[in-house]
This record gives sequence, C-alpha cells and structure tokens, in this order.
Amino acid sequence: MTRGVLHYDVGDQVELYLLIKSSTKGIASNGKPFLTLILQDKSGDIEAKLWDASDEDVKVFQAQTIVKVSGDLQNYRGRQQLKLRQIRPANSQEGVQISDFLETAPITKDEITSKITQYIFEMKNPNIQRITRHLMKKHQSEFLEFPAATKNHHEFVSGLAYHVVSMLDLAQAIAALYPSLDKDLLYAGVILHDLGKVMELSGPISTSYTVEGNLLGHITIMVNEIGKAAEELNIHGEEVMVLQHLVLSHHGKLEWGSPKVPMIKEAEILHYIDNLDAKMNMLDRALERVKPGEFSERVFALENRSFYKPVFHK
Amino acid sequence: MTRGVLHYDVGDQVELYLLIKSSTKGIASNGKPFLTLILQDKSGDIEAKLWDASDEDVKVFQAQTIVKVSGDLQNYRGRQQLKLRQIRPANSQEGVQISDFLETAPITKDEITSKITQYIFEMKNPNIQRITRHLMKKHQSEFLEFPAATKNHHEFVSGLAYHVVSMLDLAQAIAALYPSLDKDLLYAGVILHDLGKVMELSGPISTSYTVEGNLLGHITIMVNEIGKAAEELNIHGEEVMVLQHLVLSHHGKLEWGSPKVPMIKEAEILHYIDNLDAKMNMLDRALERVKPGEFSERVFALENRSFYKPVFHK
Amino acid sequence: MTRGVLHYDVGDQVELYLLIKSSTKGIASNGKPFLTLILQDKSGDIEAKLWDASDEDVKVFQAQTIVKVSGDLQNYRGRQQLKLRQIRPANSQEGVQISDFLETAPITKDEITSKITQYIFEMKNPNIQRITRHLMKKHQSEFLEFPAATKNHHEFVSGLAYHVVSMLDLAQAIAALYPSLDKDLLYAGVILHDLGKVMELSGPISTSYTVEGNLLGHITIMVNEIGKAAEELNIHGEEVMVLQHLVLSHHGKLEWGSPKVPMIKEAEILHYIDNLDAKMNMLDRALERVKPGEFSERVFALENRSFYKPVFHK
Amino acid sequence: MTRGVLHYDVGDQVELYLLIKSSTKGIASNGKPFLTLILQDKSGDIEAKLWDASDEDVKVFQAQTIVKVSGDLQNYRGRQQLKLRQIRPANSQEGVQISDFLETAPITKDEITSKITQYIFEMKNPNIQRITRHLMKKHQSEFLEFPAATKNHHEFVSGLAYHVVSMLDLAQAIAALYPSLDKDLLYAGVILHDLGKVMELSGPISTSYTVEGNLLGHITIMVNEIGKAAEELNIHGEEVMVLQHLVLSHHGKLEWGSPKVPMIKEAEILHYIDNLDAKMNMLDRALERVKPGEFSERVFALENRSFYKPVFHK
Amino acid sequence: MTRGVLHYDVGDQVELYLLIKSSTKGIASNGKPFLTLILQDKSGDIEAKLWDASDEDVKVFQAQTIVKVSGDLQNYRGRQQLKLRQIRPANSQEGVQISDFLETAPITKDEITSKITQYIFEMKNPNIQRITRHLMKKHQSEFLEFPAATKNHHEFVSGLAYHVVSMLDLAQAIAALYPSLDKDLLYAGVILHDLGKVMELSGPISTSYTVEGNLLGHITIMVNEIGKAAEELNIHGEEVMVLQHLVLSHHGKLEWGSPKVPMIKEAEILHYIDNLDAKMNMLDRALERVKPGEFSERVFALENRSFYKPVFHK
Amino acid sequence: MTRGVLHYDVGDQVELYLLIKSSTKGIASNGKPFLTLILQDKSGDIEAKLWDASDEDVKVFQAQTIVKVSGDLQNYRGRQQLKLRQIRPANSQEGVQISDFLETAPITKDEITSKITQYIFEMKNPNIQRITRHLMKKHQSEFLEFPAATKNHHEFVSGLAYHVVSMLDLAQAIAALYPSLDKDLLYAGVILHDLGKVMELSGPISTSYTVEGNLLGHITIMVNEIGKAAEELNIHGEEVMVLQHLVLSHHGKLEWGSPKVPMIKEAEILHYIDNLDAKMNMLDRALERVKPGEFSERVFALENRSFYKPVFHK
Repeated sequence: MTRGVLHYDVGDQVELYLLIKSSTKGIASNGKPFLTLILQDKSGDIEAKLWDASDEDVKVFQAQTIVKVSGDLQNYRGRQQLKLRQIRPANSQEGVQISDFLETAPITKDEITSKITQYIFEMKNPNIQRITRHLMKKHQSEFLEFPAATKNHHEFVSGLAYHVVSMLDLAQAIAALYPSLDKDLLYAGVILHDLGKVMELSGPISTSYTVEGNLLGHITIMVNEIGKAAEELNIHGEEVMVLQHLVLSHHGKLEWGSPKVPMIKEAEILHYIDNLDAKMNMLDRALERVKPGEFSERVFALENRSFYKPVFHK
Repeated sequence: MTRGVLHYDVGDQVELYLLIKSSTKGIASNGKPFLTLILQDKSGDIEAKLWDASDEDVKVFQAQTIVKVSGDLQNYRGRQQLKLRQIRPANSQEGVQISDFLETAPITKDEITSKITQYIFEMKNPNIQRITRHLMKKHQSEFLEFPAATKNHHEFVSGLAYHVVSMLDLAQAIAALYPSLDKDLLYAGVILHDLGKVMELSGPISTSYTVEGNLLGHITIMVNEIGKAAEELNIHGEEVMVLQHLVLSHHGKLEWGSPKVPMIKEAEILHYIDNLDAKMNMLDRALERVKPGEFSERVFALENRSFYKPVFHK
Repeated sequence: MTRGVLHYDVGDQVELYLLIKSSTKGIASNGKPFLTLILQDKSGDIEAKLWDASDEDVKVFQAQTIVKVSGDLQNYRGRQQLKLRQIRPANSQEGVQISDFLETAPITKDEITSKITQYIFEMKNPNIQRITRHLMKKHQSEFLEFPAATKNHHEFVSGLAYHVVSMLDLAQAIAALYPSLDKDLLYAGVILHDLGKVMELSGPISTSYTVEGNLLGHITIMVNEIGKAAEELNIHGEEVMVLQHLVLSHHGKLEWGSPKVPMIKEAEILHYIDNLDAKMNMLDRALERVKPGEFSERVFALENRSFYKPVFHK
Repeated sequence: MTRGVLHYDVGDQVELYLLIKSSTKGIASNGKPFLTLILQDKSGDIEAKLWDASDEDVKVFQAQTIVKVSGDLQNYRGRQQLKLRQIRPANSQEGVQISDFLETAPITKDEITSKITQYIFEMKNPNIQRITRHLMKKHQSEFLEFPAATKNHHEFVSGLAYHVVSMLDLAQAIAALYPSLDKDLLYAGVILHDLGKVMELSGPISTSYTVEGNLLGHITIMVNEIGKAAEELNIHGEEVMVLQHLVLSHHGKLEWGSPKVPMIKEAEILHYIDNLDAKMNMLDRALERVKPGEFSERVFALENRSFYKPVFHK
Repeated sequence: MTRGVLHYDVGDQVELYLLIKSSTKGIASNGKPFLTLILQDKSGDIEAKLWDASDEDVKVFQAQTIVKVSGDLQNYRGRQQLKLRQIRPANSQEGVQISDFLETAPITKDEITSKITQYIFEMKNPNIQRITRHLMKKHQSEFLEFPAATKNHHEFVSGLAYHVVSMLDLAQAIAALYPSLDKDLLYAGVILHDLGKVMELSGPISTSYTVEGNLLGHITIMVNEIGKAAEELNIHGEEVMVLQHLVLSHHGKLEWGSPKVPMIKEAEILHYIDNLDAKMNMLDRALERVKPGEFSERVFALENRSFYKPVFHK
Repeated sequence: MTRGVLHYDVGDQVELYLLIKSSTKGIASNGKPFLTLILQDKSGDIEAKLWDASDEDVKVFQAQTIVKVSGDLQNYRGRQQLKLRQIRPANSQEGVQISDFLETAPITKDEITSKITQYIFEMKNPNIQRITRHLMKKHQSEFLEFPAATKNHHEFVSGLAYHVVSMLDLAQAIAALYPSLDKDLLYAGVILHDLGKVMELSGPISTSYTVEGNLLGHITIMVNEIGKAAEELNIHGEEVMVLQHLVLSHHGKLEWGSPKVPMIKEAEILHYIDNLDAKMNMLDRALERVKPGEFSERVFALENRSFYKPVFHK
C-alpha cells in the first residue's frame, strides 16, 4: 500500500497525488485572494493554503479535482498543515482516478453481497424474507456505494453496507445468547433500518442531504417503501406493519427522530445493536492515532467526550 | 331539547333514560360486590353506585346498555353523584337508541361535507386538489363519525370533522391577512393532518387505539396514504412530498411525535392553527360551568392550568 | 423607488449613498489598521472593508454617518461584499438624511394611529377602554417610532406599532370565529402587551437595552404603568388586575420571562396571536430572497430551522 | 406547657380540646355517611373518623370549631390515628380560643417588631430606608400575622415575619464576612422580598391564594407597591429600580417565577439567604421526630429527599 | 414441577402452601380490622383479603410466614385475587421451607461459580486478574445469593450472579466481533461493576437498602474496595485506576449516578452490555404472560412502555 | 506595591518585567510566522503580538519565561493590547522570579495554617477530628499551594486554602445562628470537600487535570483517602461513612458530579456554603473594574450573566 499523506511526519518533504475535497476562496488582509484547500487520500485529509491565487487558480482548483503537489509538512496550532511548493492538476495520462483517493469499507462489495444474501436466506418467515429481499434488490447498487452518514460514523464509501454487515453479525451473536429473540425480524430490521439513506443522501462523494431527505427523512422514506413493497408482492400479514414499526422506532426516542418508541422486543434490541456498532466505529477511529497514556480528541457524537488509552494498552 | 342529567341540581329527584358508559365491579368491605356505573346522556356523565349487586346485575348492567333510572342527586366530595332508587334496562319498545345519548358536534354531517367540498373546490393546484379529494372520498364515512381524540379535545362523535371545519375557517381568515400563504397547501394540510386517526382509533364510541395506531400512529399512516394516493392518481410533482411533509411535521416538535420539524411556511402555520383550535375547544369546555369570579378545574392538556373567569364576564 | 444596494448582482459596479450602520477598527497582519463597515439603505445592509485606514478615516467613518461610495459587488464566502473604490462623507448640500436609509413599516404613522383609535373606540367596557386610551396617549410618540425588538422580528422603525396593528387585525378575525372571546380584553391586551418596550429599549436607531430594560424588563414596566394609570383615572374594578395579568403572562411560560402563565382565556389567545404574527414576519423575511427549490438560511429565533420554498411556488 | 396530641403514644387514652382543621364527608360502603376530621393543637395534627355521622353532626363538626374529644391513640398504616369515643363542641364557658391551637413562631411579635425596626434604623441610604420603613408600616399588622407560605416552610402564624428576622440575622453575619456587600440593600431586600404575600395569601388560618395572588403573584404585587411608595414619598433615585429588581429576581431563575435573573450582587446573595433559611427550617422540622440511625420521611420541597440522622447525633 | 399459584385460572379452586410476602392491616368502613396479604410461590404473587381479622390473626399472619390456604381464584378489576376460604400457618412437620417459595436464577450456584472462575482464568493481565479474583473470593457467598436489584430486573435469589454470567457471555461474543476490545478489562468490569450491591442491599429476601447503600451507594463502595484490594495485594499499576473508572462510570451518565462518564472504550461498552442484559431480562418477563396480538403491562424501568407480541409469534 | 500592567491606561508607555503565560505561533497572511503572547503579572494578564518571529524567537519566548518588555498600551476592539517595541528574556542577575508574577491569596500560608489548626482543635468528636487532622497533615504542602480550580473561582496560588478558610468562617457564622448544626461535621466537611484537588490538578501554575483527575475526579479520590485514613487510624464509627457522604454529595446534584445527593443536614449546608463563597469570589472579581452605572462582562460560571453596579455605589 502506498504511503498516504497522513503517514508523513512534520518536517518531511511530500510529493503526492491528492484529491481536492473542498476549496474555499479567502481574501487576505493585503487584499489578495487565496485558496484554503482540503486535500485527501485514503489515509485521511489535510489543509493547505494557496496564497496569491489567480482567477485561473480559483477556476482550476475546484473540489473533486485530482492534483499533484509537492511541499513540506508543518505543524500549525497542533494540527498538521501542508506548505505547498508546487501544485498542478493531474492529467488523464497519469492513470489516477477519484476512487483511488476515497476511504472505503475494509471488505469488498462481493463479500458484503454474499453475507447479506446468506442472512436473508436463513429467514424462515416468508413474508419477512420476501419484503427484505425485494427492497434489497431494488436499492442494491446504491446500498453498496453509500456511506452510513455525512459525518460521525461509517462516513466512507460502502459505509452503509459495512455498518449493516457488522450489525448482522452482532445480531446473530446476541440472538444466540437470548433465544427468545425472533432472528427473522432482527435481521430484516438491521437490513432495512437505514436503507432509506440511499434516498436521503446525495451519494458516496461530498455527501449532502437531498430535498426529500430534509423534508421526509430516511425513516419515513423507508416506511413508505415497505408499504409499497408489500403491495407489489401482495403481502397482507402483520409482518408488514411490524417491519414498518422496526424502521420507524430504530432511533429509540421521539427527540432523536423516531415518531414512535420501540414497542416490540426486537425493535428495542435493533436500536441497541445500531448504537453499539456505531459507537465501536467512532471509538476505534478516535483512538487509532492516540498513544498509550494519552487522551483522544473530543468526539462530538459521543457527547463530546475525550477517550483515554491506558498505558498498559501497548 | 330534553333536560339532561347535568342540568339537575343537588337535592332534585331524577327519572331518566341514561346510557351506561362504563361499569366496574367492586367488593365492599362487607365482602359483597357492588357496581360503579358511569351513566351518560348528551349533557355529560355522572357516577352512581349499585350496592349489593347480584351476579345477574353484573351481567345486565354492562357498558353500552341503556337503562331507566330513578334516584336523587347528591353531592359527594364536591362532585355530583346519583343515588339510585331504581334501575332497569330499557326495552326495545321504549324507542331509545344509543345515539340519543352521545355528545355530537354542533353542526350536521351535511353541513360539514358541504363546507369541506367547497374548500377543496377552491384549490387551484390540481395535484393538491386531486390528492385531497381522493383521500377525503376514500375515508369519508369514518371521517364524519370519528372523534378527534380519545380525550382532551373534540372527543365526541364527529369531533374530528368538526375540528377540521373550524381549522379551515381559521386558515381562511389567516390567509386573508397574510397573502404570502399558499391557501391550497394550508387547506389540504388541514384536511389531511389528522385523517390517519380513522385508522389509529377504534371508532366513535368507547374510543381506544388500534394496534396499527399504537405501532405506527396517525401521522405515519396518513403519510403512507398520501404516497399510495399519488401512485393511484399517477401524480409525480413535488406536491406529494410537500403534503407528506405537512402531515409529518404538524405536531411541531420531535418530542411531540413529528419525526421532522416544520420546514415549509405553511407547515409551521398549520401547526399553529391546529393548536389554536384545540385550545379554544378545551378552554371553552373548561370555562363552561365556571361562574364569574371563579377558577376552573385544572386542564391536563393545558399544562394542568386552572383558568379564571373575570367577575365582569357576566 | 430607487434601486437599493441589495438589488445589485455580483459583478455590478455600484455608486450610491449609504448609511454607516457600524464601523469596527481592525489591525491587519501587516500591522496596519483597517475598518469593517456595515453600510445600509432601505433594501438591507452589506459589508465593506476599508484597508490602510488613516486616523482621520477612523474618525470620519463612524456609525450614523451618510457616505457616498463607489465600488464593485463581489461574492465572498457565499455572502455579498462591497469592494470599495471610493468613499467620502456626504455633505449637507446633497439633500440626504438618515431616515432615507432606514427600513420602516409598510404603513404610515397616520394609518397606524387611525387603526388603533378605531379599535379602542370599539371597546364596550369603559374601564378597559379608558386605561388603554390613557396609556396609548401617554406613550404615543415613542410607540409610533420604536422597533418591536433589537433583532429577530419587526426590528425596524415603527416595527412595534406595525406588529400591534397586524395583531389587532388577527385578533378581530379570530374573535369573529370564536364568539366566546372578550374582544375588549383581546384588543387591550394586544395594544398594551409590548408597550413597555418604549422604556425597555433605547430608541429606533442602533437599538439597545436601557438599564431599566435590563433590570426590570418591558413586562414589569408596563404592569406598573397599568397600575399607575388606574390610580390616576380612579379605576378600581377587576379589569385593572386582569389587564396586568394579560401583559404579565403574554410570554406564555415562566422560562420565557412571564412570572405567571396565562390563566385567563384571552391571555392564552393573546400569547398565540403574538407568536403567530412574529413568526409570519420572520418566515416572510427568511423566504424573501430564496428561489423555488431552495432552502433559506437558518433562522435563529425559529429554533435555528431552515425553510424550503417548494418548486411549485413560482 | 400542656401535653399536645402528638406527645401521646399508641395505646394511650386521650382526653383533650382540639381544633377541627378540616372536615370531609364520606359515604361508607354500607351507604351511611361518615366524617374524616383533621384535629390539631400546637403540637401538630391527627386524623379521626366519625362513623355514622348524622346530618346534625355534619353541620356541627365544621372546620374552625373547637371540640372536646376522648378516645384511644391507634396506629393505622404506620401513621397515628385517633379512635373517637366521644366528641362534642366546646362551649363559650370553657375558656378555650382558636389561637390556643395554632402553631406560632418561637418569638413574639414585639421581639420581631423591635428587631426589624433596629435593622431599618441601621440603614444609611435615606431612599432605601424611607421606602422600606413606609412599606413595613403600611403592611405591618398582616406582616406580623401571616405565614411565609401555604406549605413547605414557615407555614405557621407569624411565619413570614419569623423567616424575615432569621434572614436579617443571616444577612448581617454574611455581610460581616464579605464587606463588599451593601448592607442597606441586603436588609431592605430581605424585608421586602416576600411582603407581597400579605396580599397573595388569604391570611394566617386555612391559608389559600387570593385571586390577585393567583393572577399576579407576590413578586409583581410588591414591585408595584415599591413603585407606589416611591411616588408617594417623592423619591426618584435609582434605588427604586434596584429595590424592585431585588424583589423581582429573588426566586433566582425564570422557571421559578422571577421574570429577571439576579443582575446585582446583593440580589444574588438575597436569593441565597432566602433559600438557606427556608432549607434550615424544612430540615429541622423533618429531622425533629427522627431518632439517630433513622431516615426522615421524604421532603417534597427538598427534591423529595429523605434525610439521615447519624447514630452519633444523640 | 408443582403447579404454582399463577398457573390457575379464574374460577378454579385452589389448595396450596404459600409464603406471606407482606401483610398490611386495614380498618374496614364497618370499623373492623382486615388484613391485605400478598402471598407468593416460585410462580409469582397474588393478593388475598382476610376479613374480620382478630388480634391473634394479625399476630400470626406476618411476612415470612408459610401458610396453607384454600380458596377460589377471582378476577378483581382485571387482576387476579384469591378469595380465602381457609388459612392457617404451616407447621414444622409439613416439610416446607421458605426457599421453596422464592424465585431463583435458572442456573445453579455451582454452574455460576465455575463459569466465573473460567472467565477469570482466561485473563492475561496479572494485575487485573489478581484484583478481580481477590474481590470475588472476598464477597463470594453474598454474591451468589443476592438479587441484582430491589425491583425492575433480576430481582430474585442469585439474580446478581446470574446477571453477571449473562453479561460475561455477551462480552465474550462482542469481543469476538470487535477484536480491538481488551477482554481482560471487559470481563473484570462485568464481574466487579455491581459487586458493591452485596453491601448496598440488605440481602436476598425482602430486599431493602442499607444505610451505607443509601449514603454511599454500590459504585462508591466498590471503588473503595478495589483500592483496598490493590493495597493488600501490593499492586500499583494503572490497572487499579482503570478498574475503578470502569466501575465508577458504568451507569453511563452523571444524572444516572456515575460521577464520571465513560472515558475508556471498555467502560463505554460495559455500560452497553449491562443495559442490554437488564433490558432483555425485563422484556422477557413483561412478555412472558402476554398472548400473541396483545400488549404487555407498562414496564416502569423501560420508560413506562407497553410491548406488543406480534400475532405471528405463536 | 509596584504598578502592574493592568494599572496603565491606553496611550501609556510601558517598561516592565512580565511572565509569559502562554505563547502560540501563528502564520500571517504574508506567510510569515508570528507569536501571540499572553503576558502576566500579579495585576492580571494582557495580549501582545510579536510579528515576523524568527525560529529563535519561537524557541526563546515559551510559556513560564520571564521577559523584559517595552511598548505602548493600545485599545483593540475594546480590549487592551500591548504593542511591543522591545522584548528580551530576563537573566538570572536581574533578581526576578516566577512567584513575583503570580496572583496569590490575600492571606499568608501561616495565617491559613493557624486558622485551620484552630478549627480542627475546636472539634469535639475525636473520630472526626483525627481523620481531618490526619488528612490535612498528609496533604498540607500541596493544599497550601494549589488553586481551587483551573478557572472560574479562586484560580490562583493558594486559592484552594483561601477558599477553605473563607468557608470555615462562614460555617462558623451560620452554625451560630442555627444551633442544631453539628459544627464538627461542618468544619470537617469544609476542610475535606475539595482536598482531592491536590491529586486531581497538576499544581499551582499552568494548572491542568491529571489522568487520575480525569478518570476518577477529586470527589472519588478524597472518599478513598478518608477510607484509607480510617483504616490507618483504626477508626470504625459511622463518622467515616458520614464524612465520605459529605464529600461525595457536596456538588449537590447528580448532574453536577455527585453520585449521591445530600442526605444529611450538614451535607446540604456544606453544599450551600461552598456555593456562596465561590459566588462571592466570582462576583467581586467581575465587578472590580466596573464603574457605577455600568454592567460587567458576562460571567460564564454564573449562568453567563452580566452584573450591574448601581449608580449610588460610589
């Protein structure tokens, strides 16, 4: 694996292809424009300033452009910054493409697909199985590409599908310990709970909310989809309503965006599994770069807490 | 109009047909069973005790039975109570029926229908108009019968429709003062906002929640219905999503059961109109029996406040 | 009407008289001072930077000074900014005055006065009518000039009076639909509810809070004024206390600054009317510059929400 | 001092004069009426049941009647109850009067008056001194009789004045330790802070809220009174507004009924002194009957806590 | 297994040995005393009334007495009640003992001991292992007897140990899926987190709080115990403080009684595992007696929610 | 006393020794580095910019360095700033030391020690006295040096001890007025309540939290210490647990970090005394530089309030 921009140390000279994640124009106090660039590759992102930017520069160095840069890694207020010496857009002969620079899930789409297919195959209730299979098939391509969120957790390519697969394994382990749980419901709930995000979010890159996402939200979108699927498949059992309830209530509380609190055992447990997998993802990422004996940066989505890595965790 | 049970004074002798609203068996400290009966007519309801109730009594004096009673009106801890002298079930020759004893909206179903038809007729946006008309037609008979809630406000026969008509008049008056409002959206929002209650609630008498009402709630039910209506009518404009948003957000806050807060001007105003009409209904009922210079009983749904009727309100 | 500074597009050359709303000295990283000017006319306000400001510049370009500027309209981080080419103070021969640059209510003081006089005239309860007329007369000149607030809603010249007139029309429309409401109380409550702001705030321009406004607040100030008015007019009926209660409780909740919650029907409705008119004002201003299919900026006083203008709202 | 009803033990025979605090009619399950009497003397109150009460009994044994009773002290569900053998109203020759049965403050009215006169005398700022003296004089007789509240703390005859005197001593001690405090303001704030209760509450016996107390509250009432006093005394200094602020803000938070939070140092400290003295009163009363090693009953106004008396507190 | 009192249906005649869980004396409206008895066996508890109780009855039928009863099972207000025909205390020849009537964990103490020994054996960090083993040994006999709480979840004999064993299995399953977790910390945290309850609670029967439990609580008690253990074992590594942090923070939030929020990954996950196992226990018990298509009673510790058993859960 | 940096006025020339409190490197828009220095002496601190800082400058002008500076006092956005003309590190011959620049408590360590010794001497309960004396002796040297907090109140050298001494005097005055208070408990509670801060915080200069402080907190640390002290002194009475409860509950509420609310009278009063002394300290500091008729800056730890100094406070 190539050495990513975050694997260098302060003082190193850097020469790399990077993707412009965002580009913002500023005006310096001498009246001249400059660009604040966020540059990324699979290892993460870093800030760089382009001083005295010409009108041409502003036009060329837009988000989603791949650039070749050389420069020095500096420390600025405790955060790394790239001091640019040279920057130019990459050209088509150089054989680099956007996907080379995006973080992706640690398992392949094929592995994901095969795991999910297996879990659906194991379901015994035909109504639950058919609805789940139908909706998974309908949205499969986006499902395999989308992130699980715009930020906070699993915010990378295939993050949504990776989150679902982790949750399915967790659901399986928990159901093995508490046999009163209905595995069909639990698996279907895991697979469908966030599937509405493929319509709520704009896509895997520079992810933002769609108008539908803002006005209805992924919960309502997916509840509607389950209703439609049942009609198309001509399914009328209580399973339809129960699956809708699982999706509806999976945020756990009204103030977190669920219009109904969980009122079915598997709905309550689904909420827990979702939370636990998201927290593990956030905790691992926060502690990744922390040395034993140190505290992590504050994690906004974990109530702004800072986490400690014990000295004996070598 | 006949003199209702609440129009008598303490000390009066009473001889009336009444409907048993509920009947609860108790066991007195002497070990003998008795019945606590809530008896009602259109004027309201009153408690009565039937001491030394036989097994036969328990079987006969069930809820939804019409009875002929005679007795004395007493005061017990500040509340009126009926001391029974005689009680017997009414028979079919006596020409009394359940609907004679239920409170209903002060306007007829025909008036309601005609008003709503007129408001739909005035809509200019064909997509909004067609969806509203379609759903109103589909659920019309229940809509005209159901209460607006199980308690708190408009909890009587046709209460839902009466609430909607009052809100429509209010919407019209407000839109006349603030011309930037989209009347079509406002009228459609008013008509559809609580229509899901015809599936959330069990019906106009002894109203309770259905399983669907508990697990999904009237908001989600109606958002689904709008989606289905649009499909059946082959309507694809943004109006569909906007109407869904109006219904979705009409409780105003997440913690009040709306999974999205109002993000469209008419959605915000709809929430206000709903609130204002419900409050006026509760305030009027609370102050109805209060004399000038006195405070009303506490009203739970108005933050448990007690309201004062000024001395000069004669 | 002349073309205001907000009616130009990015790239346009501008030559205009403008009023300095605020002027803040900064020190650039080259050690030289500069001024950040907020310039306004009736159409709104815009930022401009004056680089390398001399001591003389700092002295001349103070808030409340009218200036003649020429420059170019630029886009800076998504907000418009004026790039100054020339700036000089206007002189007395140029016939411009401060009031030419201030936003004012869309109706004249005469119209306001006539409307309020009419509503007071319609009152039937002489105690309510006399107190209201007395206080309106006492504070009339400030009432006609003051804004309704320092920010959020109706924060312009005559904003307070314009807010009151809109609320009176709304009160009239609502009272027509709910005849149990006491119109005298409602009108008096509307007229008096915020009248204390003429002592709480400093005035119509560069509005801030007075010491009395900070320590007592407009609610307490006006409750005291009603007490004094009643003494001067030798009025002793319960109307005095009831009017004081309406003013006292019009914020609706203790945590919003009302030491008593509404306990009279008209007090509850007054709170609603106040809220509804303020929200309509904020919503209209937020959506004014938004194109169909877009979201507005976040509105702090509307729980920081962003509002969507539907595509079909052309 | 005579032995009070609470000084007897379960099993004792009792023969005492007692005051009926409240009398409530019930109907037993055998259909016959009975009376629940709360009987009190200075030592506290106790419940008694009068079975098979005649119409005459109901008329005679009303609240505020002094009765001669004999009976046995029983334990019923962990609380003491008086099992009546005989009960009759006391007659005028028996030389008992209502005040013999009411709890009162542990210092006399004369001591209170003399202490308060002394604290006012020590004030150096003539404006503060004159307003305080004027209002104390105006409301003196009620001030010396009223309780500080209907329940929770100092809810006995002269409770208000006793609370004020304790707070004055506390204010003096604190001001001695923190010399930056303005003693005049602190003393005046203590004396005036609850004085509005003489209009908010109905009186020292069977205390309830007046209409004015409900609609305006003691805070607003006293702020108005300070305004009137200043006018009558022709005082115009900032002291008037500052005293009003002290009264206005003494509940400390908006949600506790102060429309403004403390914004003057002495206002903040006044809130603390008020709280501390009220808590000491509640704590002492809760722990009075508790033995070392036991927990008290829960105290509602102390967040429903139960307090422990250490074993070594003998 | 014998048929328990809860396995009978309304109308059945019952003849059983039962344990008196509580006995409360009441006085009926005819002035005669009666006893309200809560009678239990392993299947649960039921209420019975003993009318016209003599002084002898009151003395004999105390809590913790085993009685032989015969009677009829009745329905009273939707709850089952036992109508007594005969009741007498069991005598020593009848071979019944208190433990026959108490609910206990579904696994034996030996199984529990062996599982916990195994988990401690698997630990690799000697400091963590020694402290855990030391404290488990010190409190083992109470640990194996005590309930996990006085109510809500695992409130039966050996409930604490059963809860710990379930959590250990859950911790193992989760750690298998998220290999970054420190299993030693997780297992030790699970074993120690509630061990302080053996000092906070009074014991396995008629469980109440000790004075130490009220004033310090099981969290503080166990943090102190870990400190003492480390001193006795002469262990000084950071493991001591980290284990204390795990116990300290396992309630997850300050307002739930943890003076520190989790700041170590395993502390966060421990809180989740604790919650999940407690919820599963409460959910299973709530749904145990519910038929498909019905809602359970409300569960206070699950935010007072009622849970639905789907129709297809047969 | 020498004239401190805060005693100069804008426009004055300054030549002073100052201590660098913090030094932060920035990069100006011309690409050159600069330093933002916070310089302090006993009178307070002030900001200064060092433009065009060389690598040498960055190395030399670190926090905790004493420098000799000359420059001009300027006003920048309403706050004072020092415009540097010259700056150099002080050398060892110049006779200046760090303690010359640190704010310290207004009484000496000897006075503190003598007062605390006296309060401990007055205790009558030998268990309480011995534990308090033991722990005071154990941590005395840090106790006399440490601040009471990193910010908000008493955040200066010896701040902790000064806070304790003020609280002791306050406790004595309050106990004199409420004789039911146990003075031994109150004094011991005051002395021990924050003593854990000597392990929670890093020390008197550039104070930060230790790892133990973050993971356990001063409350838990001191509760452990009391337990150890009791063991070492072989004390077993209830006093140990009661003292632990006082320390445990002194923050007053769970959400403020106390795992138990006060359940002993002296614990409740200790919480009040702590609060009152901290607030007096914050209020005095906030109002120190405010002129009569003005408002202070907002004080974060006093709910972000601003305080007014009355005009008559000259």
